[in-house]
Amino acid sequence: MTLEADTLANTRDQLAQLVQANDRNSIETILENSSTSELARAVAMLDEHERGKLLDLIGAETAADLVEQLPSIQAVQLLEDAQPDQAAAVVNELPSDLQADLLSDLDAEDAEAILSRMQPNEAASARRLRSYDENVAGGLMITELLHYPAEWTVSQVIDDLQLKADEYRDYQIQYTYVCGEDQTLIGVLRLRDLLIGSRTRRLQDIMIPNPLSVPDTLSLEALHGFFQQHHFLGAPVVGASGQLVGVVQRSDVDQAWIEQQDRSFLRRQGIVSGEEIRAMPLLERARGRFMWLSLNIVLNLLAASVISHFESTLAAVIALTAFLPIISDMSGCSGNQAVAVSIRELMLGLAKPSDLLRVWLKEISVGLLNGLAVGAIMGFIAWFWKGNIVLGLVVGVALALNTMVAVSIGGIVPLVLRRLGRDPAVASGPLLTTVTDMCGFFLVLSLATVFIDYLI
Amino acid sequence: MTLEADTLANTRDQLAQLVQANDRNSIETILENSSTSELARAVAMLDEHERGKLLDLIGAETAADLVEQLPSIQAVQLLEDAQPDQAAAVVNELPSDLQADLLSDLDAEDAEAILSRMQPNEAASARRLRSYDENVAGGLMITELLHYPAEWTVSQVIDDLQLKADEYRDYQIQYTYVCGEDQTLIGVLRLRDLLIGSRTRRLQDIMIPNPLSVPDTLSLEALHGFFQQHHFLGAPVVGASGQLVGVVQRSDVDQAWIEQQDRSFLRRQGIVSGEEIRAMPLLERARGRFMWLSLNIVLNLLAASVISHFESTLAAVIALTAFLPIISDMSGCSGNQAVAVSIRELMLGLAKPSDLLRVWLKEISVGLLNGLAVGAIMGFIAWFWKGNIVLGLVVGVALALNTMVAVSIGGIVPLVLRRLGRDPAVASGPLLTTVTDMCGFFLVLSLATVFIDYLI
Repeated sequence: MTLEADTLANTRDQLAQLVQANDRNSIETILENSSTSELARAVAMLDEHERGKLLDLIGAETAADLVEQLPSIQAVQLLEDAQPDQAAAVVNELPSDLQADLLSDLDAEDAEAILSRMQPNEAASARRLRSYDENVAGGLMITELLHYPAEWTVSQVIDDLQLKADEYRDYQIQYTYVCGEDQTLIGVLRLRDLLIGSRTRRLQDIMIPNPLSVPDTLSLEALHGFFQQHHFLGAPVVGASGQLVGVVQRSDVDQAWIEQQDRSFLRRQGIVSGEEIRAMPLLERARGRFMWLSLNIVLNLLAASVISHFESTLAAVIALTAFLPIISDMSGCSGNQAVAVSIRELMLGLAKPSDLLRVWLKEISVGLLNGLAVGAIMGFIAWFWKGNIVLGLVVGVALALNTMVAVSIGGIVPLVLRRLGRDPAVASGPLLTTVTDMCGFFLVLSLATVFIDYLI
Repeated sequence: MTLEADTLANTRDQLAQLVQANDRNSIETILENSSTSELARAVAMLDEHERGKLLDLIGAETAADLVEQLPSIQAVQLLEDAQPDQAAAVVNELPSDLQADLLSDLDAEDAEAILSRMQPNEAASARRLRSYDENVAGGLMITELLHYPAEWTVSQVIDDLQLKADEYRDYQIQYTYVCGEDQTLIGVLRLRDLLIGSRTRRLQDIMIPNPLSVPDTLSLEALHGFFQQHHFLGAPVVGASGQLVGVVQRSDVDQAWIEQQDRSFLRRQGIVSGEEIRAMPLLERARGRFMWLSLNIVLNLLAASVISHFESTLAAVIALTAFLPIISDMSGCSGNQAVAVSIRELMLGLAKPSDLLRVWLKEISVGLLNGLAVGAIMGFIAWFWKGNIVLGLVVGVALALNTMVAVSIGGIVPLVLRRLGRDPAVASGPLLTTVTDMCGFFLVLSLATVFIDYLI
């Protein structure tokens, strides 16, 4: 552990020092010998000025290797802080899907500055890919693919592969596509199909005809489903008229899916933008968090107004105050458990927005069991702690009822939000907590008001 | 939307009816024509008895296709509810890594019943794989791979590929491995290397020597890092003495990684087992949730005891009660935001347990800004709502200070838990909330006690 910490401290300090000293060779040696996460952390610890210098110092190819390894938010930061000329040279070296992703994440101005300095054909391809939404097949695909006319023979293909071996070096060529007129996709070949059998056969005779393909507008979620269902490493992407425009790879879809879950996780925890690493500027980080905190103030005031309404009851039974946060917190937990299961079932495709009734029945039965359990426990605790059986009853009954309310809302709200086309992760938490708080406070305080004579 | 709901209702009802009617052919037609998520949902809606019959009705191969498509928790359920003979026939047809995974997830007794009925060689291989932890390279690898002696020529390999084309049909053969004595891994061949050039060359002359490999004990996290760093589709797995034992594929690592995040998400939201779908038995679901709720009662009582301690202050300034849940909730939110960023940075490798000081400095600066902001807002609200400027000051200052406490704890606790070798996701939430509640209640109530003369 200590050793590891030392290595890192070294990598970071060295990197900073070498950037200061313009020592290009030593930097390249460090980059070659560090693991991805060491690099990511070392780069995260550079300041803006040092990051700007880093890309300018090392060669475009080394820089492209570095950019490929970093999480996209760091890669964008690095390109922003570099000179546009140098940034363009780096982007030229990246695979087409990463080019498009990073350019989409940059400010429009920065992106344009880089595009105008890129090689014309690379820039044109990047602009075309950038016109797609980042999370549809067109935005995730790469355009580096092999396709041949149906009349070609196996040996013609093999000659081409040998001739252009250098150009194809970085291609993912598990599949080779066969196209008809106007680039229409008509078949697919696995490499092994070329390997086995005679070299004089024509592609049209050995290809798998009418291959499965995905439209360039297919959503990330649908793509994830597609690769769950089919054990392919990649799928051809076709445009509106059936022409082959690219190939989307399973690994890129998985990666994008993980990143989407990641953003969704941060949003669910109250970072509205869904993006924060601690290397981002302070004000940007504070703002992303504050947006949610300020909304939360409003929601909390709604709940507090219920308490305020019952001040006379509370004044008479001051012992109740200690139980208000407990009821709020316990109900929140029960509700969040239901939210979590619903979000997961939506993701796995086990629940759909139309399953409201089934989900509610499943939730209310768990809520009944656990509500009775925690209600009984808290009721006894309140009874023995404050020495009043009616106080115990009031707290226990309120908690039991509110647990059932919380699981019902928690189970159903994510489905409703999905039906409305919203990210179920974002709004479920705060919405839920406010309503269960209000309901919980109302239950316990109105019960206490009814039985006030037995409580004082 | 309506159409989709109808289709599903049909799939589900049909499936249940056809199972009742023992109509094997129609069931197989439905299975072939439904999407993965339709199937998963339709199966989720069958009861235990119907699920038991389903596998017994359809052929082993169709059943294996179905099992491969379902989320693992559903697949396990299906195998448990089937007759052991039929379950064994299905497991025979599955790829080796899935065999081992499902058998590990079954009760020991059920697994043994199935293993003893499987084909001897399949059972032996499954037992060997099952001896690995599910989340290390040995547990994730498949054993269906191609390896040849170094002295073989390309044409010998191609002959073998043609001869055994049927057996290799389901293999992932992007890579072919070259082994020396005792199965020691000495080289790797890409399919394209076989394709290009003369067929008389020996493998030892065209292979990539000393290929990167991973030990069979490598953890999922390290594997995820490996595939982040190297753009391979798979990596050979070697045993303690360097012998080739399997191949681990990027797609399986990504899948396992997603499932681990998934479980971690459920645990973080209070489902202790990290596993719940609503098709599980009621008692099991209630128990998984109750374990956390009962721990939460204890934690909440700690916080409530702080409130109880200040009952005389509260009795004198009853207006304060409405602000206790607000301070608790707002601080909890700020703390959770910090927890989320730390968990994410740990996952991305941007933070390590040794970064405590850096993380704390980054958090305390955001905490200072947002603490001042929400403290000022809540202070003014308290002042104007309750008409007492000192009450406003007490609430505002307590909230500001507690926000800084919350982000400090929230940022640091996940790093400490990781250093202790615990899942940072599990304990961060409840630990954090309890401490920030106690601290927040103490701050606002002790401040109020000090300034009690100005508050009444």
